[in-house]
Amino acid sequence: MASSRVGIGVIGYGYWGPNLVRNFVSNASARLVSIADLDSGKLAASTHLYPGVMTTSRYEDLLKDPSIDAIAIATPVRTHYELAMAALKAGKHVLVEKPLAPNADLVRRLLDEADRRGLTLMVDHTFLYTPAVQKIRDLIKDGQLGDIYYYDSTRSSLGLFQNDVNVIWDLAVHDISIIQFILNEEPIAVSATGSSHVAGSPENMAHITMFFESECVAHVSVNWLSPIKVRQTFVGGSKKMIVYDDLEPTEKIKVYDKGITLDASPENAHQFRIGYRAGDMWAPNISTKEALQTEIEHFLQCVRNGTTPISDGRSGLKVVELLEAASLSIANHGKPVVLRQRQRVPEDVKVA
Amino acid sequence: MASSRVGIGVIGYGYWGPNLVRNFVSNASARLVSIADLDSGKLAASTHLYPGVMTTSRYEDLLKDPSIDAIAIATPVRTHYELAMAALKAGKHVLVEKPLAPNADLVRRLLDEADRRGLTLMVDHTFLYTPAVQKIRDLIKDGQLGDIYYYDSTRSSLGLFQNDVNVIWDLAVHDISIIQFILNEEPIAVSATGSSHVAGSPENMAHITMFFESECVAHVSVNWLSPIKVRQTFVGGSKKMIVYDDLEPTEKIKVYDKGITLDASPENAHQFRIGYRAGDMWAPNISTKEALQTEIEHFLQCVRNGTTPISDGRSGLKVVELLEAASLSIANHGKPVVLRQRQRVPEDVKVA
Amino acid sequence: MASSRVGIGVIGYGYWGPNLVRNFVSNASARLVSIADLDSGKLAASTHLYPGVMTTSRYEDLLKDPSIDAIAIATPVRTHYELAMAALKAGKHVLVEKPLAPNADLVRRLLDEADRRGLTLMVDHTFLYTPAVQKIRDLIKDGQLGDIYYYDSTRSSLGLFQNDVNVIWDLAVHDISIIQFILNEEPIAVSATGSSHVAGSPENMAHITMFFESECVAHVSVNWLSPIKVRQTFVGGSKKMIVYDDLEPTEKIKVYDKGITLDASPENAHQFRIGYRAGDMWAPNISTKEALQTEIEHFLQCVRNGTTPISDGRSGLKVVELLEAASLSIANHGKPVVLRQRQRVPEDVKVA
Amino acid sequence: MASSRVGIGVIGYGYWGPNLVRNFVSNASARLVSIADLDSGKLAASTHLYPGVMTTSRYEDLLKDPSIDAIAIATPVRTHYELAMAALKAGKHVLVEKPLAPNADLVRRLLDEADRRGLTLMVDHTFLYTPAVQKIRDLIKDGQLGDIYYYDSTRSSLGLFQNDVNVIWDLAVHDISIIQFILNEEPIAVSATGSSHVAGSPENMAHITMFFESECVAHVSVNWLSPIKVRQTFVGGSKKMIVYDDLEPTEKIKVYDKGITLDASPENAHQFRIGYRAGDMWAPNISTKEALQTEIEHFLQCVRNGTTPISDGRSGLKVVELLEAASLSIANHGKPVVLRQRQRVPEDVKVA
Repeated sequence: MASSRVGIGVIGYGYWGPNLVRNFVSNASARLVSIADLDSGKLAASTHLYPGVMTTSRYEDLLKDPSIDAIAIATPVRTHYELAMAALKAGKHVLVEKPLAPNADLVRRLLDEADRRGLTLMVDHTFLYTPAVQKIRDLIKDGQLGDIYYYDSTRSSLGLFQNDVNVIWDLAVHDISIIQFILNEEPIAVSATGSSHVAGSPENMAHITMFFESECVAHVSVNWLSPIKVRQTFVGGSKKMIVYDDLEPTEKIKVYDKGITLDASPENAHQFRIGYRAGDMWAPNISTKEALQTEIEHFLQCVRNGTTPISDGRSGLKVVELLEAASLSIANHGKPVVLRQRQRVPEDVKVA
Repeated sequence: MASSRVGIGVIGYGYWGPNLVRNFVSNASARLVSIADLDSGKLAASTHLYPGVMTTSRYEDLLKDPSIDAIAIATPVRTHYELAMAALKAGKHVLVEKPLAPNADLVRRLLDEADRRGLTLMVDHTFLYTPAVQKIRDLIKDGQLGDIYYYDSTRSSLGLFQNDVNVIWDLAVHDISIIQFILNEEPIAVSATGSSHVAGSPENMAHITMFFESECVAHVSVNWLSPIKVRQTFVGGSKKMIVYDDLEPTEKIKVYDKGITLDASPENAHQFRIGYRAGDMWAPNISTKEALQTEIEHFLQCVRNGTTPISDGRSGLKVVELLEAASLSIANHGKPVVLRQRQRVPEDVKVA
Repeated sequence: MASSRVGIGVIGYGYWGPNLVRNFVSNASARLVSIADLDSGKLAASTHLYPGVMTTSRYEDLLKDPSIDAIAIATPVRTHYELAMAALKAGKHVLVEKPLAPNADLVRRLLDEADRRGLTLMVDHTFLYTPAVQKIRDLIKDGQLGDIYYYDSTRSSLGLFQNDVNVIWDLAVHDISIIQFILNEEPIAVSATGSSHVAGSPENMAHITMFFESECVAHVSVNWLSPIKVRQTFVGGSKKMIVYDDLEPTEKIKVYDKGITLDASPENAHQFRIGYRAGDMWAPNISTKEALQTEIEHFLQCVRNGTTPISDGRSGLKVVELLEAASLSIANHGKPVVLRQRQRVPEDVKVA
Repeated sequence: MASSRVGIGVIGYGYWGPNLVRNFVSNASARLVSIADLDSGKLAASTHLYPGVMTTSRYEDLLKDPSIDAIAIATPVRTHYELAMAALKAGKHVLVEKPLAPNADLVRRLLDEADRRGLTLMVDHTFLYTPAVQKIRDLIKDGQLGDIYYYDSTRSSLGLFQNDVNVIWDLAVHDISIIQFILNEEPIAVSATGSSHVAGSPENMAHITMFFESECVAHVSVNWLSPIKVRQTFVGGSKKMIVYDDLEPTEKIKVYDKGITLDASPENAHQFRIGYRAGDMWAPNISTKEALQTEIEHFLQCVRNGTTPISDGRSGLKVVELLEAASLSIANHGKPVVLRQRQRVPEDVKVA
């Protein structure tokens, strides 16, 4: 590393870039060297706020700059692959806005390149660094929820219609990364439906069901055309259940000591008597630390120590594979797509 | 009719029967003659409240009673067909708890029997008689929502697991009857997924997508294993959108003047510029009249006048057909099931 | 007692009477003998539901009936004294709708009469028998809240304007009985303001502050002219704080592990450094048992065993004294009214 | 004016100062010249963000700078008078954080000084510039609410205890400025109670009732020791009623077509029959423009054109007079304090 601080270049100063820049600037382990964007007005805005940071309309300038150790990319999805590959080839560590690339093949090439060069490749799955999601993960890991029965999430608002990706690449991507992060197993198949209400536009509304080998199931509902904003996730377990509402200012997570109890009848072990359990509700205190601050710290640590990021390229690949499979199922009106072979051979899910 | 009032017999005095009884008793056009139930304790409870009403453990007694013009059936689903058919054959008008029967074939036989005899056959789809659903229907009919883009509903709670039907026959049946009531078109195909978290029990959680020939799509999410009760429906239109929360004590329906606006670009009619519209929200005053009271009035009127009920056997058949198709799709992990031929021939939905 | 069951007469079958009747009928320790009301239509309605219960338009009939051991009175406030006194003089135990009487002098006469005759005199302060209020009391008694800093309650809706009492006798009476029930000390003074928005009507909106000798303070806000219903109470303690929302269907009580911490500075014991504490929130599971059922059981037990009710005449007297003092303060635009002498002599609160 | 832009100096870069600075920097009619603060770390932080803006630890430097036309003061309350007076004497226009000064006498001296010199003196009552409060004012002005019956507000949270002012100078000041802004009349008397739960600290909880000559009444409840944040205001009128919840992200204002209707009985004009009206609810779309941006634009306009600000010194004086009277009433446990003579002579409110 050129200096004791990690030298940083940021490509893209649109919607998300300024958040990355603000967090790199305020992190003592980083030194923000330069920002690239095609829009000179945006570069002027960044100079107004951070006069000590260079700006350029040519991202190649960042690749050539030896004082830059790592590149953060916050540009439209269709440009991710080209920019990330160029950065890796220039020997830079890379942090890419989600999703990593518009298809799994391109992601695999990025992975190979990063592996070959021993560089850090991290995806900006910000939700994994929120105190709320980390708390949910801890509760599951500690066994407090018991066996996980389901993850069911709704993420909708009157959101910007994007023209290069549909709503699942924009919104469901968050849930898919969270599911992968908090659950112990990978989905084996996916069924999804989606619809477009503007002729010629990508799907603006979709519903995805992910099947697991265990009894667990995950469902994600996303919508760009909702009159109100909803960010609500239910996680049901055999012992406890969680309602996670990201719009709640303080009590984002509520843990319910509610559920069913099963009593095997003496005569027949396959017969159950189902009882109902209603206990207390508990809302753990959640840190208010900004997720992106935690994420940037983690990225810098991985770059310095060569450790593998939580949201590394491999986890990003799984997310993109799932999005691809869901897109295929949407095109076939829900017909399921198999993701991987079951261990216990089943008969009932067939490849699309 | 034996008297100026419609003579009524009720079979089943369990969960729902007492509500039927209470409403028949307080309706001036009806005379409740007799109640049948296998449980003598329940019959004693009804006698305590209504000493003038006869009770019996043999439903056949009601069929033979010439002072009874109509029979209301509130028993488990698996008994609906046998009881309703017997009542029709005895020349009684019939009101049956939803769903009409456990499969479409049985429903068709009931329809035929009622038609042949010129008797009223009505299903107790109570939600159609709620002031909230009737208001939504009126708003759609008046064109206030514009083209309907979607109906998206969540209906969940820590509910009783039933052993003869799964969660869609218990909960989704409400939404399917509502969709049929408020929309102008029939679904052409359905994709559904479901899962059981108790080995050997029917599915306790399911998600159903219904496709229409227009751009409209309907989705219903139901769950018996939710830590909190949710009864929330979104209806999105090109002009306005509705959030209907049945748990709200007063403002059950909120109408949002929000949405997108489309401007065709001059060069290319297929290209749109999407704009966003945020206007006022409006919660119409909703009557607090009990739905079942309205429904009983309607049933008595149909019996007297020979008019066709809103929730007649034919509409009940469509609901059961949809439930059957959804069950088939659930068994195939979301593989779509076609319900009827499109008018405009499509290529993309194939029969299961 | 004439039989093994307590013989009951109910005077008043208007708004609240039917609830009393329903609970007496379903209680195995009681036998409802007769109902008195001036309105023959209401009596007919009761006969329809309970054909075995006698009815009369002359309450005196109940007093003379030797099979009646206890009388429950659910009539307008202005009639409470006359009816309760007559019942006591006839040797009957008495349960009176709140408030006991329209002024403290009359309450004292009832107390004397009941004491002289060894009869049970109980006020129907229903909230004291709700699982929620009993839970709050237990939490305070267990010391979980620490020192109680405040009780602050809002109770409002678009409620019926009454013509013989103002809003504090109708709504604040609930909070005053709760405060007396859950706190360890009596208020020493009260300041209240109120206003009428209909010329010639009693106050329909009022705010009451109750002072205590400790640092505790209680405030109650009541309003008959509110667009939405509010039933919300905050209880602040040095260790924990409660938000009690009676309109919540399940999580009525939320206990917050939040507050301030005080560190005495070393130089000066009178100087504090104030810190802030934000911990978990916890919603204890609350029984859904109907309060009136618990209350009727308690009344019957007190009648049988001669034990003192929780809401006995003495507690009812304190409530009426407080309402009288608040009314006086309202007439003087907030000028405080002293209720009792402080133990630690203060200078600053003077009698009105 | 030295240039075409208004030259601005800001004194105080603590909690609120950075918001002022950010808005002056982004306003094209202003030129931020210099920031003064005693804390060199805060000045360094401002230099980091705005390298072109001078900083100083001596506020006198700003007064001497001829390129500065106006001074904004965001320092503790106890310093407002000295700093504002010095700025006015230096010929600068002044914008002062609320409240203008710790007592009415000092405010009057500032008013006199500003008048004598023809300078703008404005108080930073930010809520008057929020779209929500402006919408409420418009609805009242348009007569849509009818006669105003009450304003009832709760403003509480686990807030910072301040050591130089009590909770009414910190929180109730907002409501008092709003009341003055939206109502057509001035309060004639005030009764208030308050309490301190930390020995030696100013009151952290208070309730204020303001009386008007009309039937209108205003009540404000403030609390620094609440487990949850509440910002809720009810405005009741004879025609309609408003619920204003400042924590709602979008539907901050709900207008209810609810209320009572009065029918004079034919025999006696003084007798009313009260009816109840329940109509629709309506949530007008509210702009999301930042209040401080609107306020800064208004200040700059007043400075340039010599027009009187909405929140001018005179309105600030009335707010401070009310706070003084409320403080006096608190010291006397609610004893009312008269603010001005009624026009229609009353008998019932006497001077404290």
